[in-house]
Amino acid sequence: MTLRFDIHAKDGAARTGVLSMPRGEIRTPAFMPVGTAATVKAMLPSSVRETGADIVLGNTYHLMLRPGAERIARLGGLHKFMGWERPILTDSGGFQVMSLSQLRKISEDGVRFRSHIDGAEEFLSPERAMEIQRLLGSDIQMVLDECPAYPADESQIEKSLALSMRWAARSKAAFGEQPGHACFGIVQGGVYPHLRQRSAHELREIGFDGYAVGGLAVGEGQGAMFKVLEATVSHLPEDRPHYLMGVGKPDDIAGGVLRGIDMFDCVLPTRSGRNGQAFTRGGPLNLRNARHAEDTGPLDSECRCPACRQFSRAYLHHVVKAGEIIASMLLTWHNLTYYQDLVADLRQAILGGTVAACAGKVLAAYARPPEAAPEA
Amino acid sequence: MTLRFDIHAKDGAARTGVLSMPRGEIRTPAFMPVGTAATVKAMLPSSVRETGADIVLGNTYHLMLRPGAERIARLGGLHKFMGWERPILTDSGGFQVMSLSQLRKISEDGVRFRSHIDGAEEFLSPERAMEIQRLLGSDIQMVLDECPAYPADESQIEKSLALSMRWAARSKAAFGEQPGHACFGIVQGGVYPHLRQRSAHELREIGFDGYAVGGLAVGEGQGAMFKVLEATVSHLPEDRPHYLMGVGKPDDIAGGVLRGIDMFDCVLPTRSGRNGQAFTRGGPLNLRNARHAEDTGPLDSECRCPACRQFSRAYLHHVVKAGEIIASMLLTWHNLTYYQDLVADLRQAILGGTVAACAGKVLAAYARPPEAAPEA
Repeated sequence: MTLRFDIHAKDGAARTGVLSMPRGEIRTPAFMPVGTAATVKAMLPSSVRETGADIVLGNTYHLMLRPGAERIARLGGLHKFMGWERPILTDSGGFQVMSLSQLRKISEDGVRFRSHIDGAEEFLSPERAMEIQRLLGSDIQMVLDECPAYPADESQIEKSLALSMRWAARSKAAFGEQPGHACFGIVQGGVYPHLRQRSAHELREIGFDGYAVGGLAVGEGQGAMFKVLEATVSHLPEDRPHYLMGVGKPDDIAGGVLRGIDMFDCVLPTRSGRNGQAFTRGGPLNLRNARHAEDTGPLDSECRCPACRQFSRAYLHHVVKAGEIIASMLLTWHNLTYYQDLVADLRQAILGGTVAACAGKVLAAYARPPEAAPEA
Repeated sequence: MTLRFDIHAKDGAARTGVLSMPRGEIRTPAFMPVGTAATVKAMLPSSVRETGADIVLGNTYHLMLRPGAERIARLGGLHKFMGWERPILTDSGGFQVMSLSQLRKISEDGVRFRSHIDGAEEFLSPERAMEIQRLLGSDIQMVLDECPAYPADESQIEKSLALSMRWAARSKAAFGEQPGHACFGIVQGGVYPHLRQRSAHELREIGFDGYAVGGLAVGEGQGAMFKVLEATVSHLPEDRPHYLMGVGKPDDIAGGVLRGIDMFDCVLPTRSGRNGQAFTRGGPLNLRNARHAEDTGPLDSECRCPACRQFSRAYLHHVVKAGEIIASMLLTWHNLTYYQDLVADLRQAILGGTVAACAGKVLAAYARPPEAAPEA
């Protein structure tokens, strides 16, 4: 194993520790901001670090299309290119191929598709997905998997899972030996516990540096997602990091931590920020709402980010309504800070044996109905 | 006079000094970034300050429409609202009414128009323009003037000028006494030297804290603009700041300084930045151009901004092409830094008696034909 993972404390199924990599330590539970196209949208890398992020995620699909993996390699790799010297995890491109590309055709060999940017024909196989991630210089590389649409019946999921497991073995073989870099497998199996468990055991047979749970947060609902985690995580190696892909809302993260998840990524804090939505300790806020127009208070009085320390809700309301870039900058910064503080609080609570209470506060704040649609 | 202006050195017609205001000193020649709608687009106020800006400009037209001057006053004024505690100069709204609004109708009393945002009917008079600027808490307030379209014949310009001068007297009366705040008059008169001189003398009769030259950079060309400055500036009080409104390209600024201008504002560095255009010591660059795609060098090797210190031209090319917000952030930051370094170099050169050589370098870099249209 090239990836050292020290678990410092447990509280129920929740764990806190440190994943050590040559480019830096990753405190877990960790939230990884998404840096799709070699940028965490609307943030400078130094600001991403200021929020507390130890690692960011890059998207193989986006980067292979523009500017291209070979080009990034010639320019010295993704870290140097985007100005982020700490660890980067890259996905394999499978999820975006399914959600963004056109005319995709899946075969045993891989997936053929057309770029959503210029319509050019592209091909992604397990071997090419791993080659791209190696060219990028990714610290944690993900196997290529098939991401079935939701809902899908059991036989479809079973067939898709079998393909994903064959691709996992090919991905691992293609990853080969890369000292200081890690390769994670991805558990699939839909909402079917026995398929999830089969997937977990097959991945353990191959042997990975970490184990992700994929194919969730695709419409199955939080309750079903938590049930899948409960049926899956105990079948993963306890001494390896567990990563819940593409999740989620603050309460999803709190619930995931309670069920033994160590790593998360999600576009929600960045995408919502660009859309005038803020995550606060009191729950979600829609800054477009007219009730903020003359509110001189901060977005979140406990938050340390520039949006909360230097500006009022009234100002944020104004720049959101006016479509100003600073609205995206400030709300993204705030949301990423909130997410980092959320996982930092959970880490602290696990050390203190109070994770249930800590997660309960988050679940309470986010179980409320979302704020009404904008009035003005 | 509430505005203290100390001229430290002269070199030909060029001057360098300090304008002292309660909210801070303004080193001249000064470039004022434009903060249209209570934000210098794509920049945090702290970053604007880091570029070296001593003062920013706010637009009365935009702020009166959204969020409204009375609202900003209730929220504690524009400085507090936008998080910029140093001096702010506001225009009177006249220029934007002419260029942005619909169905405008000018009378002796003022100008009636429809908002470009929601079509609401609005009215701006000299008295209302000054009231708005007072509500905003503006440090330097500009008189309302009429900005005639270019080209216009001499009789049209003369008639418009007469109205602007009556409005200037009403604006000054409406400004009244505001300790620590300044009121500037605006010289009009098109490209007609005798009208410019008449305007200058009429404004001196009224008496202002500073004198702006308006109605330029509207299509008359650099040569004609410089001729107007040569015919005008010597008729302005030497001991008061001279402000060339809405100008301009780096060579326009260098040429303006050579002709006795102390203050400039322009959307060019910010707007061009959002459009993939950079100003460098070597001349203008279009980052969309494919020749930058694998260029590992910095935008401008002498520049101190984050875009130049932390990223390559190849990265900037990528994020411009991908339409990423960080492209606007980095290129705006760079362009504002370039503009601040430009005026800092000119200030230093005036102190050293070498302003002609300093300005000559800028004129040479920017007299070249602009880079060809993007290839990819």
